[in-house]
Amino acid sequence: MSYWDIDKIKYEGTKDLKSGNFFQYYNPDEVIGGKKMRDWLRFSVAYWHTFDQRLVDPFGDGTAIRPYDKYSDPMDQALAKVDYAFEFYDKLGVDYLAFHDRDLAPEGDTLRETNKNLDKVVDKIVENQKTSGMKVLWNTSNMFTNPRFVSGAGTSPYADIFAYSAAQLKHSLEIGKRVGSENYVFWGGREGYESLWNTDMKMEQEHAAKLFHMAKDYANEIGFDAQMLLEPKPKEPSTHQYDFDAATTISFMKEYGLDKDFKLNLEGNHANLAGHTYQHEIRVAREAGMLGSLDANQGDKLIGWDIDEFPSDLYEAVGAMYEVVEAGGIGPRGGLNFDAKPRRSSFEANDLFYSHIVGMDTFAAGLRVANKMKEDGVLEDIVKERYSSYNSGIGADIESGKADMKTLEDYSLDKTQKELRDATSSDHLERVKDTINHYIIDTLSK
Amino acid sequence: MSYWDIDKIKYEGTKDLKSGNFFQYYNPDEVIGGKKMRDWLRFSVAYWHTFDQRLVDPFGDGTAIRPYDKYSDPMDQALAKVDYAFEFYDKLGVDYLAFHDRDLAPEGDTLRETNKNLDKVVDKIVENQKTSGMKVLWNTSNMFTNPRFVSGAGTSPYADIFAYSAAQLKHSLEIGKRVGSENYVFWGGREGYESLWNTDMKMEQEHAAKLFHMAKDYANEIGFDAQMLLEPKPKEPSTHQYDFDAATTISFMKEYGLDKDFKLNLEGNHANLAGHTYQHEIRVAREAGMLGSLDANQGDKLIGWDIDEFPSDLYEAVGAMYEVVEAGGIGPRGGLNFDAKPRRSSFEANDLFYSHIVGMDTFAAGLRVANKMKEDGVLEDIVKERYSSYNSGIGADIESGKADMKTLEDYSLDKTQKELRDATSSDHLERVKDTINHYIIDTLSK
Amino acid sequence: MSYWDIDKIKYEGTKDLKSGNFFQYYNPDEVIGGKKMRDWLRFSVAYWHTFDQRLVDPFGDGTAIRPYDKYSDPMDQALAKVDYAFEFYDKLGVDYLAFHDRDLAPEGDTLRETNKNLDKVVDKIVENQKTSGMKVLWNTSNMFTNPRFVSGAGTSPYADIFAYSAAQLKHSLEIGKRVGSENYVFWGGREGYESLWNTDMKMEQEHAAKLFHMAKDYANEIGFDAQMLLEPKPKEPSTHQYDFDAATTISFMKEYGLDKDFKLNLEGNHANLAGHTYQHEIRVAREAGMLGSLDANQGDKLIGWDIDEFPSDLYEAVGAMYEVVEAGGIGPRGGLNFDAKPRRSSFEANDLFYSHIVGMDTFAAGLRVANKMKEDGVLEDIVKERYSSYNSGIGADIESGKADMKTLEDYSLDKTQKELRDATSSDHLERVKDTINHYIIDTLSK
Amino acid sequence: MSYWDIDKIKYEGTKDLKSGNFFQYYNPDEVIGGKKMRDWLRFSVAYWHTFDQRLVDPFGDGTAIRPYDKYSDPMDQALAKVDYAFEFYDKLGVDYLAFHDRDLAPEGDTLRETNKNLDKVVDKIVENQKTSGMKVLWNTSNMFTNPRFVSGAGTSPYADIFAYSAAQLKHSLEIGKRVGSENYVFWGGREGYESLWNTDMKMEQEHAAKLFHMAKDYANEIGFDAQMLLEPKPKEPSTHQYDFDAATTISFMKEYGLDKDFKLNLEGNHANLAGHTYQHEIRVAREAGMLGSLDANQGDKLIGWDIDEFPSDLYEAVGAMYEVVEAGGIGPRGGLNFDAKPRRSSFEANDLFYSHIVGMDTFAAGLRVANKMKEDGVLEDIVKERYSSYNSGIGADIESGKADMKTLEDYSLDKTQKELRDATSSDHLERVKDTINHYIIDTLSK
Repeated sequence: MSYWDIDKIKYEGTKDLKSGNFFQYYNPDEVIGGKKMRDWLRFSVAYWHTFDQRLVDPFGDGTAIRPYDKYSDPMDQALAKVDYAFEFYDKLGVDYLAFHDRDLAPEGDTLRETNKNLDKVVDKIVENQKTSGMKVLWNTSNMFTNPRFVSGAGTSPYADIFAYSAAQLKHSLEIGKRVGSENYVFWGGREGYESLWNTDMKMEQEHAAKLFHMAKDYANEIGFDAQMLLEPKPKEPSTHQYDFDAATTISFMKEYGLDKDFKLNLEGNHANLAGHTYQHEIRVAREAGMLGSLDANQGDKLIGWDIDEFPSDLYEAVGAMYEVVEAGGIGPRGGLNFDAKPRRSSFEANDLFYSHIVGMDTFAAGLRVANKMKEDGVLEDIVKERYSSYNSGIGADIESGKADMKTLEDYSLDKTQKELRDATSSDHLERVKDTINHYIIDTLSK
Repeated sequence: MSYWDIDKIKYEGTKDLKSGNFFQYYNPDEVIGGKKMRDWLRFSVAYWHTFDQRLVDPFGDGTAIRPYDKYSDPMDQALAKVDYAFEFYDKLGVDYLAFHDRDLAPEGDTLRETNKNLDKVVDKIVENQKTSGMKVLWNTSNMFTNPRFVSGAGTSPYADIFAYSAAQLKHSLEIGKRVGSENYVFWGGREGYESLWNTDMKMEQEHAAKLFHMAKDYANEIGFDAQMLLEPKPKEPSTHQYDFDAATTISFMKEYGLDKDFKLNLEGNHANLAGHTYQHEIRVAREAGMLGSLDANQGDKLIGWDIDEFPSDLYEAVGAMYEVVEAGGIGPRGGLNFDAKPRRSSFEANDLFYSHIVGMDTFAAGLRVANKMKEDGVLEDIVKERYSSYNSGIGADIESGKADMKTLEDYSLDKTQKELRDATSSDHLERVKDTINHYIIDTLSK
Repeated sequence: MSYWDIDKIKYEGTKDLKSGNFFQYYNPDEVIGGKKMRDWLRFSVAYWHTFDQRLVDPFGDGTAIRPYDKYSDPMDQALAKVDYAFEFYDKLGVDYLAFHDRDLAPEGDTLRETNKNLDKVVDKIVENQKTSGMKVLWNTSNMFTNPRFVSGAGTSPYADIFAYSAAQLKHSLEIGKRVGSENYVFWGGREGYESLWNTDMKMEQEHAAKLFHMAKDYANEIGFDAQMLLEPKPKEPSTHQYDFDAATTISFMKEYGLDKDFKLNLEGNHANLAGHTYQHEIRVAREAGMLGSLDANQGDKLIGWDIDEFPSDLYEAVGAMYEVVEAGGIGPRGGLNFDAKPRRSSFEANDLFYSHIVGMDTFAAGLRVANKMKEDGVLEDIVKERYSSYNSGIGADIESGKADMKTLEDYSLDKTQKELRDATSSDHLERVKDTINHYIIDTLSK
Repeated sequence: MSYWDIDKIKYEGTKDLKSGNFFQYYNPDEVIGGKKMRDWLRFSVAYWHTFDQRLVDPFGDGTAIRPYDKYSDPMDQALAKVDYAFEFYDKLGVDYLAFHDRDLAPEGDTLRETNKNLDKVVDKIVENQKTSGMKVLWNTSNMFTNPRFVSGAGTSPYADIFAYSAAQLKHSLEIGKRVGSENYVFWGGREGYESLWNTDMKMEQEHAAKLFHMAKDYANEIGFDAQMLLEPKPKEPSTHQYDFDAATTISFMKEYGLDKDFKLNLEGNHANLAGHTYQHEIRVAREAGMLGSLDANQGDKLIGWDIDEFPSDLYEAVGAMYEVVEAGGIGPRGGLNFDAKPRRSSFEANDLFYSHIVGMDTFAAGLRVANKMKEDGVLEDIVKERYSSYNSGIGADIESGKADMKTLEDYSLDKTQKELRDATSSDHLERVKDTINHYIIDTLSK
């Protein structure tokens, strides 16, 4: 039988330019840079966007047409969806899924009832994992949609909401253990402020940290060894979210002693909203040893809100994957989760396949190009040469700590303007950009 | 003899990925879509950025190293620069140049003295044109740098400044005639406001229109038949510039009866500052019959000021050239002028070559890809299909004007929600983006 | 009986700084600048935001608690809401309301059923108008929420959707006539594009114009003489909306012969999204004779989406009202409609009162300050002085058209750099800003 | 004698609304909240903007007219300027100045010559300090204007430039000691990247930290005990500056062990460029114990570059001063330095006075309003109430660490949706904004 009206997607690499119903650059078992593509990329399907998202926007009702819309009872639909999901994974050829607790099952009136609903669906997921071999890249807890989280979950001014959040999270960690999640993610959609005037920012951040510590402690207690991850975003829905960007979130982790146990889950669109490129955020995390996992999507830099578009920009994918290749992988247990949704006008069921294909193919292309650049050492050579003055002479003295202000003054005091200008070099940056274009075209040519 | 320390740039199309010292995609005499590439693209070098720009920024002095820095007298340098410029055009292989009056020669204490300086340099340019065959894509008048233009030129609150602007412009039009400019451009860097509170916006716009009419009248009088062009930009240096974007500038032209004689000169970075893509601005102009010429450069959408980077983004070039191919050319007499400068860290003389190469190659690539998409009709077919319901039935009645509100009410009154949903189709937008990626890679592959 | 748990709001002007439950600056019958405040301001309550809005955001369900939540049947609730609404108007002390058709009643499966539901509610509104004297500032048609409008209403690529839009609009115009709407507004939330690549922009704009013409023709036919208004917004929900800003929308109206019959409805938050201040947009409309009505709200310029906050910024209100005072009123039949919603954390029923109070008081303060500045002629004198050089001599010759390029060249040719600098004056802009601060404080002091 | 054509500015508090030539709200010796206004505010004049800035912009030459323009020799002018400066301080009534080394004297061909020029001017400053009592709020080193710093100073890829930077900085620290600077500031205008592709971000940040450590060590060695300060800015002139915002800079300090010896110097316009309000940045610094000093200016949130406008926005000043009042002062030795310049159209010498007046008066007003709000406890009460659920019951258990996930689950498991909703409260945010308006008007009324 078949839940989705489409055949299994294949790697073909054909040149039929009009059709998008296959992979051009992704070949899961091909070895690139010493590893299979599937192991570099570890693609994950996001339950919320792919199976729950109705394609609403602030001015419009959902347009999505889904094959399981025929189920009217929420629990019936929730259970049926699991079958649709696992066939989807199989047809698309991915190895990982990711979900929030509330993606899976409807809420009851109490947490006890909600957990009961949820457990039934998780049971079915676990069964399906056994037969399919599908793994969970990460799970998480939705602590932002319900009105009770209006002013935060862990950072709520209301103690009962903090208490509830901890309780909800506890169950989510237990689920993580059951499904074998490789990571556990915290995105604090409400953990920020609407207005500074009525906010005790310090207390709220302390509470957030307290909740993270509780979560890690409980995970340890139950033997759930997932990598814990925080996901930065600067704003939306809040005016300001505390986990603004990679640097801010690392600062927060260090302040509250979380940096040993937590790493970062980074997203392209969130990077742009914070004024950064995706590559920048990954670089910051990589150099700090904090790269955990990636949410693969893209924004539109002329648009000021979170559009979660499927990635299609080859430049961004090359930039992101260059950092990943440099790091030897996406964090200890990370992958590329498509936190992305089709445009509202791509509302048919099969658009879910087409949009994953462009996303997967774009990142596969990014991997190929980044790996080729890395193999050729083209950028490494540029960087090595650019900083080479620190390898000897005064540069080596600076590096070793031998130089101090007095020796540097002696060294510099009588150098002329021209001598100092001549100590710098043009970096021919336009050539570097040309080189990247050529690498993209030539690596992907067949 | 040789003014620049580089050989003539050649079309080679090699695959040496590290070097950028040749063209990969630009082959001037190759015929694409029925026209030589050089005739589609009509590349122009901007005198100001290439020969005058010292690579300053608001926090730094110029870093540029130029071979004519050895001339200390301003007029000597201005005259010598002409020789450097024409050799540059020849080595690079372009057919057009563009300049402001003040790019060419230093100002004197009076306009009479300034004009005298200027005429000497123009004489030399005219001579060089004869031997080289170089053409002028456009010239213009710099009415923004001198402190006298602090509050505008044509829109200055001070009548003497309006008078001076007209006088300066008169001479500039005469120069245009002498050098045979194909277009004449107005960029109103100061024609806007710093604060609305002390500005008579309506009067200022009337004055601007008056000056444009004077200019066109005088051009007619002296038989200078260049296409007149206005260049939109939303802000910087002003808080608000009246020629905000293509739509606003067209509105202004119509309000003041300028739309028959003027068209638009559009720039990529300016488009972004106004919240638009470059392609959007060209589309608006094209559909209004107002596409005049293009300033080829790119911005960084995460940066809020005008960076005038040499174009290297293949997506933007494909988008821009798609509109050009659709229009059959860049306006009646337009071309691609590189209103672009190397980064401040690319300060060597030869970076001027390298950066033009990436710019020219990127737009040549854009032309190739756009032309291939057009030849295959790939997007045209999508669009034709998408709007096909207007070809018959109720759609045809709407088109022909036969339908009115009552007939449309009769037609619609009993249609169900589902029937109306079924009247729409998914546009599979993610597939369209995938298709564009494949066109880029496959068209440029060798 | 009382539907809302609050007493009628009074004008008190007390100095109890902590409470916000009264007006400080709004005194409806006080005469300011020759007119009652209520007649200058013509405050209107927006049905959608005040009575329907659940305070959802893209990441959260509605938080609103409303007294009519107890009605579970949609039609029962719709009818009950009318009573709540009219008591709200009375207690708040406003004279106008505004609504979309779909705000009032639930949709049926066909337009015929939908219209039937709607007519019942409109009947009740008309009855309530008779007893209360409440007027309708404007009504409009919601052609963006239902999935059928996914790719536009008047600009939909699908003829059936255009047909449906015309039919829906026809009924809306009939309602406008019944309730005596002073204006009729079109906000084209879906009238734009998601992607240029699959969009026939010109055809879509022609269709939009066709629909506007049909609407005006039908309004004439049934004797509905409301002022027709277009409402600009640059984007959201679309990537690009055709009615980008005031200038673009005026351009569109002129292109399609709509400028005689249509004017603009301008909104503060939309202005910011287009890169403008609210005052700028009103100025553009005022000077073009196109000011129709105002949607009073405010954005957060650090936030890139439409937050529709109740106005509290005195600077923006002064700027907006200065243009209104200058124009002698808000368009021919315009008013200040609060297209604004309480923050999601202000979820109690009475927050609807409190937030209208701050909005009304802020605009009342704006009127007081703007009127005082106008009475004192403080800015007019600055402007008059600043442009005074056009009153005589060469300036007068420029104004009268007597001057041409040659006479202006003669006039300017031997003026020195210094003479030209001296022809300009400092505008002491920092003093102007200081003056505005002092006007705000001193006018509002008691 | 008199260098400036204006009388000493007085505190008058008159109601002549048109003139800006006096203080309305600043009364230096008036005691507010237990301290003299001058001691709260510690206003400082920025040498670079006030005495050196020619009011250039990227498209225009300087418009400034200054009384010392008559000195043609650079050293003569530099020395004369000291006299003009000290009379300016006296007439304006400020107690502090701030400067970069390169503001004071022209560069020679070598650092030795440059230092010699500089020492002469510093000698004269020290003399003037003795007679006037003027203090130096901070000094700093300009390591961004000269072309040698094209790719950074401390983060330059070129060891000679690092060496030179250290040498220049050494002399600057010695000057700091001589003039008794209360703070020493580092703004890293070039300490970032133009492109990630050719940048070793980690190495560059290590070098920056190394330079800061050297500076602190040398300051200790010579007994210069100024508070060291880093000044965040996200970009401009660089594509990305490492000291992006307060949180990022604190993170950097902690990473490299600088957090004990360094604090932050925060600027309003820089805050906006990073996507924050000024108040947010001050709050972040205050709560981290990192508030050092403030650069008082304002941006235009619709403009994407650094405009350094004199502060006139009362909302921003109230927000900033609220944090200062909360902190009990601006850092250990901080003040309000006007890193601000008149608009290019305010080019007369006396505009320097007028623009400082609006800046000082705006912050004086901010202090008065913030202090009144603090005295009344109006916001403190709101905040206290809002978080009060943490004072007892489950909230107290969370605070004390007594609660863990299991106890919180027990507590929450059977709470209903309604019970949890009822645990939250509306924050009536619109009322808070109304209250702030009333505080501004009523506190400043006379």
